Amino acid sequence: MPDAVQGDKPIFRSDMTVELMQSMGSDETVVAAARVSTAADLSKDALKQDPEASKGLINFLMKNRHGTPFEHNSMTFFVHAPIFVFREFMRHRVGFSYNEESGRYRQLRPIFYTPSKKRNLVQIGKPGVYDFIPGDAKQFALMQTEMKKSNQQAYESYLAILNAGVAREVARMVLPVGIYSSMYVTCNARSLMSLLSLRTKHEDSHFPSYPQREIEMVAEQMEAIFAKKMPITYASFEKNGRVSP
Amino acid sequence: MPDAVQGDKPIFRSDMTVELMQSMGSDETVVAAARVSTAADLSKDALKQDPEASKGLINFLMKNRHGTPFEHNSMTFFVHAPIFVFREFMRHRVGFSYNEESGRYRQLRPIFYTPSKKRNLVQIGKPGVYDFIPGDAKQFALMQTEMKKSNQQAYESYLAILNAGVAREVARMVLPVGIYSSMYVTCNARSLMSLLSLRTKHEDSHFPSYPQREIEMVAEQMEAIFAKKMPITYASFEKNGRVSP
Amino acid sequence: MPDAVQGDKPIFRSDMTVELMQSMGSDETVVAAARVSTAADLSKDALKQDPEASKGLINFLMKNRHGTPFEHNSMTFFVHAPIFVFREFMRHRVGFSYNEESGRYRQLRPIFYTPSKKRNLVQIGKPGVYDFIPGDAKQFALMQTEMKKSNQQAYESYLAILNAGVAREVARMVLPVGIYSSMYVTCNARSLMSLLSLRTKHEDSHFPSYPQREIEMVAEQMEAIFAKKMPITYASFEKNGRVSP
Amino acid sequence: MPDAVQGDKPIFRSDMTVELMQSMGSDETVVAAARVSTAADLSKDALKQDPEASKGLINFLMKNRHGTPFEHNSMTFFVHAPIFVFREFMRHRVGFSYNEESGRYRQLRPIFYTPSKKRNLVQIGKPGVYDFIPGDAKQFALMQTEMKKSNQQAYESYLAILNAGVAREVARMVLPVGIYSSMYVTCNARSLMSLLSLRTKHEDSHFPSYPQREIEMVAEQMEAIFAKKMPITYASFEKNGRVSP
Repeated sequence: MPDAVQGDKPIFRSDMTVELMQSMGSDETVVAAARVSTAADLSKDALKQDPEASKGLINFLMKNRHGTPFEHNSMTFFVHAPIFVFREFMRHRVGFSYNEESGRYRQLRPIFYTPSKKRNLVQIGKPGVYDFIPGDAKQFALMQTEMKKSNQQAYESYLAILNAGVAREVARMVLPVGIYSSMYVTCNARSLMSLLSLRTKHEDSHFPSYPQREIEMVAEQMEAIFAKKMPITYASFEKNGRVSP
Repeated sequence: MPDAVQGDKPIFRSDMTVELMQSMGSDETVVAAARVSTAADLSKDALKQDPEASKGLINFLMKNRHGTPFEHNSMTFFVHAPIFVFREFMRHRVGFSYNEESGRYRQLRPIFYTPSKKRNLVQIGKPGVYDFIPGDAKQFALMQTEMKKSNQQAYESYLAILNAGVAREVARMVLPVGIYSSMYVTCNARSLMSLLSLRTKHEDSHFPSYPQREIEMVAEQMEAIFAKKMPITYASFEKNGRVSP
Repeated sequence: MPDAVQGDKPIFRSDMTVELMQSMGSDETVVAAARVSTAADLSKDALKQDPEASKGLINFLMKNRHGTPFEHNSMTFFVHAPIFVFREFMRHRVGFSYNEESGRYRQLRPIFYTPSKKRNLVQIGKPGVYDFIPGDAKQFALMQTEMKKSNQQAYESYLAILNAGVAREVARMVLPVGIYSSMYVTCNARSLMSLLSLRTKHEDSHFPSYPQREIEMVAEQMEAIFAKKMPITYASFEKNGRVSP
Repeated sequence: MPDAVQGDKPIFRSDMTVELMQSMGSDETVVAAARVSTAADLSKDALKQDPEASKGLINFLMKNRHGTPFEHNSMTFFVHAPIFVFREFMRHRVGFSYNEESGRYRQLRPIFYTPSKKRNLVQIGKPGVYDFIPGDAKQFALMQTEMKKSNQQAYESYLAILNAGVAREVARMVLPVGIYSSMYVTCNARSLMSLLSLRTKHEDSHFPSYPQREIEMVAEQMEAIFAKKMPITYASFEKNGRVSP
């Protein structure tokens, strides 16, 4: 995503980017940590488990909410998303570490989010349990037009204030929450499952969730990476109603 | 602050509001919690200490970084400030609880922050240790004009998108980070001192801090309330270089 | 409990003590914090809600796992319990503050826990889902005899080492995990519900729990106090399967 | 350490064991996370920095208490130490994950801690700022004798209660806090520095610390591993008064 940025002409995008930067641990680490409670073979070999044999134990831990064995692992993601998504993301305090691009230290680039045609625009239902249905072509066009006009004006004002010699941290006040930012986020399987449980909507979830679609787009990409890194843990999360242990 | 809101005409303000909603505990609670470690009189009477006699112990705890006795108290604040301030505020994860006004659940009001004439506008110095000096009249005027133009355009687009029947959570994407929001925030003396240490700038601080002025304006009001509620703890915080224990 | 301590003769007890030292907030605070998201009346009056009208909202929050509104309150408990209970208790890291009696700073008193006749002594079932059934008179007698003999020896050795002029922090190494300690613990409704969910066993719980009986004895007393302070929140916790939001 | 365990004959040891099981991240990750704030090259290449060039930035972050860049890394340690050490260790709540051997799930082995001749046994000074000086031969001998007698009695009673068919979670109540346990602990550089700052005693520390020697023995081993994994971060920690950012 960053390579597309050139000049001061606003760019409008509808996607989120999630990249795994580094990771530590696996399903086997979950098993090894759990076995500290019970087993005598407390050596490094405990990390080399037969993946098949781990399934039962991991499922037991998930079902009975033994959460701590899922914390001895770590994933660092690099995420590009609009500020309004990061605002929701950073409400997750426990087991999450953040470093975000700063409008105090650098001039922000004119990349703005605008919903794609696939995004349901019209809200129905009661507060807290909103559902969303597609908007019509007129609604989509008006939204697009207004977003572009407004964001362009905001970025013009941003540049004008900067060009007058005013500090970046002041000029940025005009920028919309739809502007893209980027961040490093580090979490573990337990904290990630907590986020996925609240920020994705699934028919087979034990508890209902009503996330805004845009943070769900980020969460879905994290989920796909997590499912690949820790397939047994992930399958157990799905099987047990997508509730964080 | 909220009573001033009428109609859809943008309002521009330069102040922050902090109100103490409720609180629990005092300097005496710090002393009582610390005495659990050492004393035999582990009864409710331990909460009734002579304030004077408490000074030495509190100072000892602060100086030697015995942090936990400062956690058995609680303060809930109601804060009005722009989103860019809340973005910095919510980076404080430990010992802080938040509930913020939601652009998904309600139509946001057109109240925008614009720096007052007292706010230093020009940044000097190196990254990370920026200092700020006053801007000239021309800079101030241009900033004001651009902010108003940009924010007005943003709010007009916001209303246009809403009036077209598009969901609030989509329409809000055009709103600037300078728009006011409000939140409940609950913390304890220890987490509050950590915030004050990083988000205020003092000559007698042990460690340097370079907070953005706007979050400092909020922090200063919280500090004044804290100083009144827990005067011995506060005096000790000041005396020991404004470092959170 | 502390008043019973005299001399160096070991005392054996089977009870736990929990006392509420101070508290802040109520069901109304939950409602007020939740309404920040949606309502315009963001003033102190928001704290004065009709308890009846609050039920629906609190139940909605609990059911949909909107956890943060349950954090703007605080309770400080003073707990007497054996060290092995505190060892389990202090594994609760989030939303809990602790100050415990210290064997480094003071000579510990010879009060030891021994199970009462009501305590089921015999474990059946598989690891992790153990159940317990009563022991017979012989088992109970042997356990009592061995505990007293062992604890008495431990305390005699403790005193002997102390009397030789060796530091308290060294002498205490011989003391058993069944010795009583005391602590201040501060938490909020959300963190407390998380503890209750894991440390009590209820037929109507959504998830199974297999707590050791002794920490459950402490948890039950905290639960009774919580139920009295925040009856609507508590009823909703019970109604929704005793899952922390 | 575990290989030494055979039969039910008590073993007395004076050492702690710390083993690094897995780790993620390095000094370069600190730099990369910090550069998200400021740089445009937000790609995976940001992880490949020249170590020399990183020194200045890491030192700046440490000195100015920009703590979050130090969180995007992870270390899992396997620790053998007595329960009284783990009791202090687990008071570190933030940025620490634990799984400890459980006396509910397995029969604990009779390995007990007893101070070596190098351990200063006599406490001098005021509460909170205790210092320790060597004991004499008589004190050492008496302590050894009493510890062995007491621990042996405790383990005999433990076995007797178990042999009577009483549950492990009950029988363990007689075991002393000096018995060895083992745990997995996962933390990051920031949380580790916070522990090192409080649990080691150094002449060049900015703040005084008065840790019990036994937890310091564990901390020192963690410090040595940390110094090797993140040498620039570690050097900066030392240079800046051993204060966690």
